[in-house]
Amino acid sequence: MYAVIMAGGRGTRFWPKSREKMPKHLLDIFGKKTIIQETVERIEPLIPAKNILIVTGASHSDEVIRQLPELPEENIIIEPVGRNTAPCIGLAAMYIKKMNPEGVMVVLPSDHYIPDEEVFRRTLAIASEMAQRGNYLLTIGIKPTGPETGYGYMEQGEPVAAVMGEDVFQVRSFREKPDIEQAEAFLRDGGFFWNSGMFIWKASTILHEIEKLLPDLYEGLLKIEAAIGTDREKDVIGKVYREIAPISVDYGVMEKSGETLLVRGEFGWSDVGSWNALWEVWDKDENGNAVRGRLVSVDSSNSLVYSPDKLVALVGVEDLVVVETADSILVCKREASQDVKKLVEMLEEKNMKEYL
Amino acid sequence: MYAVIMAGGRGTRFWPKSREKMPKHLLDIFGKKTIIQETVERIEPLIPAKNILIVTGASHSDEVIRQLPELPEENIIIEPVGRNTAPCIGLAAMYIKKMNPEGVMVVLPSDHYIPDEEVFRRTLAIASEMAQRGNYLLTIGIKPTGPETGYGYMEQGEPVAAVMGEDVFQVRSFREKPDIEQAEAFLRDGGFFWNSGMFIWKASTILHEIEKLLPDLYEGLLKIEAAIGTDREKDVIGKVYREIAPISVDYGVMEKSGETLLVRGEFGWSDVGSWNALWEVWDKDENGNAVRGRLVSVDSSNSLVYSPDKLVALVGVEDLVVVETADSILVCKREASQDVKKLVEMLEEKNMKEYL
Repeated sequence: MYAVIMAGGRGTRFWPKSREKMPKHLLDIFGKKTIIQETVERIEPLIPAKNILIVTGASHSDEVIRQLPELPEENIIIEPVGRNTAPCIGLAAMYIKKMNPEGVMVVLPSDHYIPDEEVFRRTLAIASEMAQRGNYLLTIGIKPTGPETGYGYMEQGEPVAAVMGEDVFQVRSFREKPDIEQAEAFLRDGGFFWNSGMFIWKASTILHEIEKLLPDLYEGLLKIEAAIGTDREKDVIGKVYREIAPISVDYGVMEKSGETLLVRGEFGWSDVGSWNALWEVWDKDENGNAVRGRLVSVDSSNSLVYSPDKLVALVGVEDLVVVETADSILVCKREASQDVKKLVEMLEEKNMKEYL
Repeated sequence: MYAVIMAGGRGTRFWPKSREKMPKHLLDIFGKKTIIQETVERIEPLIPAKNILIVTGASHSDEVIRQLPELPEENIIIEPVGRNTAPCIGLAAMYIKKMNPEGVMVVLPSDHYIPDEEVFRRTLAIASEMAQRGNYLLTIGIKPTGPETGYGYMEQGEPVAAVMGEDVFQVRSFREKPDIEQAEAFLRDGGFFWNSGMFIWKASTILHEIEKLLPDLYEGLLKIEAAIGTDREKDVIGKVYREIAPISVDYGVMEKSGETLLVRGEFGWSDVGSWNALWEVWDKDENGNAVRGRLVSVDSSNSLVYSPDKLVALVGVEDLVVVETADSILVCKREASQDVKKLVEMLEEKNMKEYL
């Protein structure tokens, strides 16, 4: 078993804490360790460190190496530029194929929140077992807890097997992020699951699917395969990446393949895509305030406060996000957390580089 | 003519910018200079620096001296402890009496906002001229611009004289801070004026009134008078202040005396008693945001931002006060600005002295 942790995120939605040089997965906003450290530790009981690969951008690789000293440095695979998930996964699959073509690879985002680690590992073990049995593309589906419009959905089909006492299902269809009415209908129906962005398959299986469905990408990957381990490796990857089109594995492979299966995951997952989502997963005091740092408050509730250095005082406010960093202070309505992205775009337009 | 500037305020309502060691009048929150510097400069064209006295607390006197180098150091009168305005004014009157018993003294709070300085000085000149004519207690009444419940009111009586073309009126009655219905009635009536807390009289006149109405205080002041200029001065002031009861000149003298007169002041006055009041007097951008420092915002309006060091980003918020200092960040609903006082009380209860 191998793990591929995709660590290509940018630092927009958790600004001002996340920055270009320090995207979300390199921050310690879930707990005492950074998110990528937690992600690696979560799978280490299942997959040894030597089999864990990280795919990341050149500007973050030093920090990734620093945060994960237990991984061999050659396990940090550097993408010269981000091209979405299909090239990232194809690249990692080529490295794994070199080691073991029939190796099962577990593809994981680097920045998700997963409180129940035991169930999580059991779910991956089930999916891996199924992946070994054939050329399947396995996904983890999360039972919706609300009419979420920020996630893609998968419609559960017929059960095809039972592994370790759990049913594995066909995927009848993939659905892109729905509007609220559609999301409510999915929730009522009960047969729709959030697409967690986690995938399990043999390296040979995903490469075969890429060959069929994304032949241009496959051609590039073959060039890379020939260069891995040679002194041309970095140059070839750079050349291929400059030329290939960005495409997600969901759109490029999963939605078009007939081999997709679904294992249900019930481990309290969230992708924590905004400060508001972080408020939801943090512990709260009796006023619903989630605090890192020191807070005093009068008539204030349901706010997230992140201020490692300064005392924060809230008076007569509710549903806010207040974040302090060395150079900036964000005050945001919780429900407007998605608009932090707009703010970062504004900083880019104004060329305020020191804050990016 | 003499000026007495009362600078005894505490640092509660403008926390975290104002502190015990740095109350409002020592801050530069109105403009480039500190409020007490602006107060002194505003009257200097009318009253020379050598005739301007400051009454302040021992813990602030060094900073007052530092901020007002143009004043002779002996003009800084130190109260060992705050005892409200009547003792403060009586003490200053004794110093002025020593210099010139018939001198007219203009008593001014140190921390008010007065945009129209020309009209202000003309108003004081009128009141001073009237004060010289007899044993009157003159006040400046401000025409209300709204049903303000935070100010005391004075009911205008009959005109008693015209000075420099302006009527001077009797005060029919003093009214303490009204409720909102009463304040609205005062506004409709048109004959009620805000009590600005500024007074003009001869030193001999106010001392005579104190002798009549506050005999215990007068007795203490006589002891101080005998000690002024001797090496016992500080000790005697300390002893007298420990024993006298705190009382305001409004309650102790003005409301009980029959000699009160009113000059109308139309110079855009505000006592700026809260962050919200400061927002009202600051210039605003096209979104109604009043900013000191650097702000970027998305869908945010009508907020005050004071952040000399850090970039402040507002997203989806309105009607907030955001204040950054070296050790603290305040985020307060504008309309709850008065509750900043509660917050400071909470810091006192929690013994968080470093933030007071």
